[in-house]
Amino acid sequence: MKLRVINPNDSETMRQTIATSCCEVASTGTHVEVVCAGAGINSIEGFYDGALAAPGVLEQIRLGEATGCDAYLIACADDTALHAARELAKGPVLGIGEAGVHAASMLGCGFSILTAQQKSVRILERNAREYGFAEHCLGVHAMKMPVLALEQCAEPALFSTLVARAESILATDESEALVLGCAGLTFLQADLQKALGLPVVDGVRVGLLMLEALVKAGLKTSKRSSYASAS
Amino acid sequence: MKLRVINPNDSETMRQTIATSCCEVASTGTHVEVVCAGAGINSIEGFYDGALAAPGVLEQIRLGEATGCDAYLIACADDTALHAARELAKGPVLGIGEAGVHAASMLGCGFSILTAQQKSVRILERNAREYGFAEHCLGVHAMKMPVLALEQCAEPALFSTLVARAESILATDESEALVLGCAGLTFLQADLQKALGLPVVDGVRVGLLMLEALVKAGLKTSKRSSYASAS
Amino acid sequence: MKLRVINPNDSETMRQTIATSCCEVASTGTHVEVVCAGAGINSIEGFYDGALAAPGVLEQIRLGEATGCDAYLIACADDTALHAARELAKGPVLGIGEAGVHAASMLGCGFSILTAQQKSVRILERNAREYGFAEHCLGVHAMKMPVLALEQCAEPALFSTLVARAESILATDESEALVLGCAGLTFLQADLQKALGLPVVDGVRVGLLMLEALVKAGLKTSKRSSYASAS
Amino acid sequence: MKLRVINPNDSETMRQTIATSCCEVASTGTHVEVVCAGAGINSIEGFYDGALAAPGVLEQIRLGEATGCDAYLIACADDTALHAARELAKGPVLGIGEAGVHAASMLGCGFSILTAQQKSVRILERNAREYGFAEHCLGVHAMKMPVLALEQCAEPALFSTLVARAESILATDESEALVLGCAGLTFLQADLQKALGLPVVDGVRVGLLMLEALVKAGLKTSKRSSYASAS
Amino acid sequence: MKLRVINPNDSETMRQTIATSCCEVASTGTHVEVVCAGAGINSIEGFYDGALAAPGVLEQIRLGEATGCDAYLIACADDTALHAARELAKGPVLGIGEAGVHAASMLGCGFSILTAQQKSVRILERNAREYGFAEHCLGVHAMKMPVLALEQCAEPALFSTLVARAESILATDESEALVLGCAGLTFLQADLQKALGLPVVDGVRVGLLMLEALVKAGLKTSKRSSYASAS
Amino acid sequence: MKLRVINPNDSETMRQTIATSCCEVASTGTHVEVVCAGAGINSIEGFYDGALAAPGVLEQIRLGEATGCDAYLIACADDTALHAARELAKGPVLGIGEAGVHAASMLGCGFSILTAQQKSVRILERNAREYGFAEHCLGVHAMKMPVLALEQCAEPALFSTLVARAESILATDESEALVLGCAGLTFLQADLQKALGLPVVDGVRVGLLMLEALVKAGLKTSKRSSYASAS
Repeated sequence: MKLRVINPNDSETMRQTIATSCCEVASTGTHVEVVCAGAGINSIEGFYDGALAAPGVLEQIRLGEATGCDAYLIACADDTALHAARELAKGPVLGIGEAGVHAASMLGCGFSILTAQQKSVRILERNAREYGFAEHCLGVHAMKMPVLALEQCAEPALFSTLVARAESILATDESEALVLGCAGLTFLQADLQKALGLPVVDGVRVGLLMLEALVKAGLKTSKRSSYASAS
Repeated sequence: MKLRVINPNDSETMRQTIATSCCEVASTGTHVEVVCAGAGINSIEGFYDGALAAPGVLEQIRLGEATGCDAYLIACADDTALHAARELAKGPVLGIGEAGVHAASMLGCGFSILTAQQKSVRILERNAREYGFAEHCLGVHAMKMPVLALEQCAEPALFSTLVARAESILATDESEALVLGCAGLTFLQADLQKALGLPVVDGVRVGLLMLEALVKAGLKTSKRSSYASAS
Repeated sequence: MKLRVINPNDSETMRQTIATSCCEVASTGTHVEVVCAGAGINSIEGFYDGALAAPGVLEQIRLGEATGCDAYLIACADDTALHAARELAKGPVLGIGEAGVHAASMLGCGFSILTAQQKSVRILERNAREYGFAEHCLGVHAMKMPVLALEQCAEPALFSTLVARAESILATDESEALVLGCAGLTFLQADLQKALGLPVVDGVRVGLLMLEALVKAGLKTSKRSSYASAS
Repeated sequence: MKLRVINPNDSETMRQTIATSCCEVASTGTHVEVVCAGAGINSIEGFYDGALAAPGVLEQIRLGEATGCDAYLIACADDTALHAARELAKGPVLGIGEAGVHAASMLGCGFSILTAQQKSVRILERNAREYGFAEHCLGVHAMKMPVLALEQCAEPALFSTLVARAESILATDESEALVLGCAGLTFLQADLQKALGLPVVDGVRVGLLMLEALVKAGLKTSKRSSYASAS
Repeated sequence: MKLRVINPNDSETMRQTIATSCCEVASTGTHVEVVCAGAGINSIEGFYDGALAAPGVLEQIRLGEATGCDAYLIACADDTALHAARELAKGPVLGIGEAGVHAASMLGCGFSILTAQQKSVRILERNAREYGFAEHCLGVHAMKMPVLALEQCAEPALFSTLVARAESILATDESEALVLGCAGLTFLQADLQKALGLPVVDGVRVGLLMLEALVKAGLKTSKRSSYASAS
Repeated sequence: MKLRVINPNDSETMRQTIATSCCEVASTGTHVEVVCAGAGINSIEGFYDGALAAPGVLEQIRLGEATGCDAYLIACADDTALHAARELAKGPVLGIGEAGVHAASMLGCGFSILTAQQKSVRILERNAREYGFAEHCLGVHAMKMPVLALEQCAEPALFSTLVARAESILATDESEALVLGCAGLTFLQADLQKALGLPVVDGVRVGLLMLEALVKAGLKTSKRSSYASAS
């Protein structure tokens, strides 16, 4: 099985972080390629960045189709160009934001999402609602840090701040699981889960694995109506 | 990884049908055991059957915990005792009804569910709504056949009837995917998908694979509040 | 008219508390019998307890049908086995959780629910939503006390704590009525209502009276589809 | 107990029809007085009629308060001036439209409403949604007959037409109960229920009985905020 | 174009305040007449006041129709008699509460409403929900001041209090726009907008302008079914 | 006032059709410029076309800002890049799909949308839901004609077909207004409205006029959080 993971921004550091998480969980026999969208966006913070990044994401889907990819993961929490990508792909396409909230809803009665910037809060809220999780998503909150600064959260002082912020969110929302609302947090999943003592859902890992699941189940994107092949 | 699949009814034929689908998709290294709930119910048609079957399902979870199972699939489309099972299990628990609607929502813009009996229609509708898919689930329809008669649908005449019924439902609902709303239909997934030309989601297969995905992602059932261990 | 009230747990103290409230409000000519489910559960705290208690509740419905009962009240705030019970009963069946939220929605623009344990919060929330009161139910909150300890709330010190907690909930939620989310609080209805100065709805009392109302109105459980008699 | 039933229109025939149903079900010891609003409206068909009738309804509440009434039933399916009436009344106030949909939701998984005129369809739909029954109310349909012509439905030919129309609605909506969406249909409840073989809910009867239930339960309209006494 | 603006209460001060805002924004060629409903209500605070004011509002619509008005603005935030007015008017009818929430939803991702009295909070919330803005309206809050006292908010000390209250509301709700939930606040729109640094929506101004827009677009109230002319 | 109208596709015919409608309704003193996005898309049919057209739309907003435009109308029914455009623009931005459904909800109790292609149905449905009109939008239907073929609908035979299709949709949905779900239908607004006898809402005309209204009311896009200026 050949899976293509698309980082909608052009940060090579981010691409490598994503690749590390993917390789960690991919099954034997699954070939994973992680590419950048090449649209010249450093990080996606808001609707505008997402709209500019979209054509690059779609170009990567097209290249994937040309080289026989079986499925695609869009590795930004706003699920950049998700529906458009499904018009191009024969196989399944997931976004990490989408995969994260699906998984979280299966593990606890209500979850919170933690993202980087305030500008993304309403985007993630709207996506969660569109995917069906208006009742399950009890809050979306921002660290109020730039996406690319998240990598510093491995430092003990910043990590403690992150844990304290997460604890506070979970208590206020009475949530039973936490969804990482940014690909840049993927490397912290295990540490955060251990520190918080409840499920911390990383859309990169669980998204890649759900794609494998859909492919193994013989499922592809529907070509009836909405996702019929783009002309 | 050791997965336990629980057939809430006591039909040995049904258990074998379920086991066949599970074995077909399980990854190398995944041990799957398929058991019956042993509550003395032949097939689950309605709220009452589900309530009577629940303690047997829960007993099978308890036995699974005692023997080191990593996760559980409840193989009835009404997701018998799903939330209660999560109080007993450390690992993830999915129902096939739940897994089916999650997967379908990722593959097309709107799906229909096909079940056996009219008595199950509102149960599946309510579950779909509770899981978040009120907008995505465009219709739940019954074949108006007993669950245990579904195995006869492999016969060409009955299969044609089934295909015609499904086509009609999909057209009326303007649906882009079909969810099999009964474990007894699992053996028809590939044939139906081929005949209909759009995704036909079998919760048994995709549920087993999603469980694998959750376990490989290091995720377990939250023990914060709602699913805290039953005393 | 003969009404059967079923206490899903096996606490004889709880059964008597429930019986006292029922007798206090039942009309002349209404015979009320209050029974325990006999499933061996001491108190129902969470999904698991509810699933185990359900067959006993259903057996009590069956016995009621055999002895000519006209209607049934399930006297636990999680409305244990409510839908399944409707398959067995010819007459109406209500749960006290259900009756409470219906009544509260008729008396003020928005209500809060106060229950015993945190484990029940999401169950009561989901039920309120399923019954239609997502917009009316402004909050479900737990005393974080065991169900069976609630009887001590008659003591002045504990009663004051309870009143203060209720006041705080009502202010935060901007609620106009309070629903008692546990049968174990039934004996406090009048005192709490007096102390709080707004409607305090006890599902035991109002549930019994609503059952009387449905029976007098000539209404029974529908046997079309979902609640058709269990085979 | 003294209950006041207010017919928002000024049809004496309608008032008597309503009174007959009320007297049929009222408990011993309940005094029921049925009055017209006196606003000069013959029948209420649409938003405009309702708005004009409202001050008369409210005047009848004020008179009721002056003469010690314990509770009020507004006997038009659009629940004329319901919320405003609650500002005037100390005791509970129900509308027959409101009472009907509450009761129906307790008896089957989904109901339909049958009203007189197309102009009322969206009003009843919106009310059902506001009360919480968006998911339970599967359709509102009009006989497309004037309200005051409904009394002729006792004639066998018209009754057969009515039954056929109701059967058709119930089949299309897959409903399990029927709500009479007009006070003018109250006299047909028993006959329709017998003919259709499922619960036919008459808001006049069940509304009066639910009022009795609320009063006996010691419940009054909340005076916190929204329904605080009008100055 | 001739637009009629109806102040549902009888405060001449309020009428003049409304007229000032209308004249400030009306296009050349638009004739605006601002009238009081004449129902004898000084200010509208709650459901009851609204119900009593409604017939006067409707009479002003009838007079407007007789004198060739093209459209109507109902200048109370509770949109007194809005639907009924549409049965009488051939042209469009808007309420200022309605216009305000429509406009706010076009300018930011989520808004809050600030009103005078607590009694109006649930009315504005319900209206916002009925118009479709359940997800966009993040909070309705009261100054807890009488409507007619709002005119004093031009004084520096009270204005500062108002700004502080608004800032606090916007921060708590994470709102991106503020809707003035009372006609009595219309004169403060520009000052508040300047002080707060985000859109402050005054339904009087934007309502009048939206009416102009609808008339210029050749649109009238639909006479199919719900708003068919009152007999 | 200077308004910029952006046609997301590159059809010069479509641009002229849109310009004609805009000029027809614009107020004296409003300067309207109608431009194409220049992204090389001939017509927008589905998610993919919209994603590819978005950067061109955004570039036209950027040019508009540089040349002092006060507000923007995105003239495709899918509201291409609407939210992203709001990050760039200081003044208000509307989409014609958005404007159309807002206006329709003010004119009748429920509307239907008529679009060109089946591929757009779910997009318009989702947008209507996101804007708040899930309850008001009773159906979205496709003519199943290419967007660019719509211009032929002026021919009597095709126009009759269109009218018949619209009548059928309105009857089935029980709708009270029709929204044109494609800019390519703008030239038919008056003729269709006359033929159908109820409001036919053209988002181009009413969108332009609503923009004028927002600008005259002194309102701009909120720069708090979600639409803060893109870096």
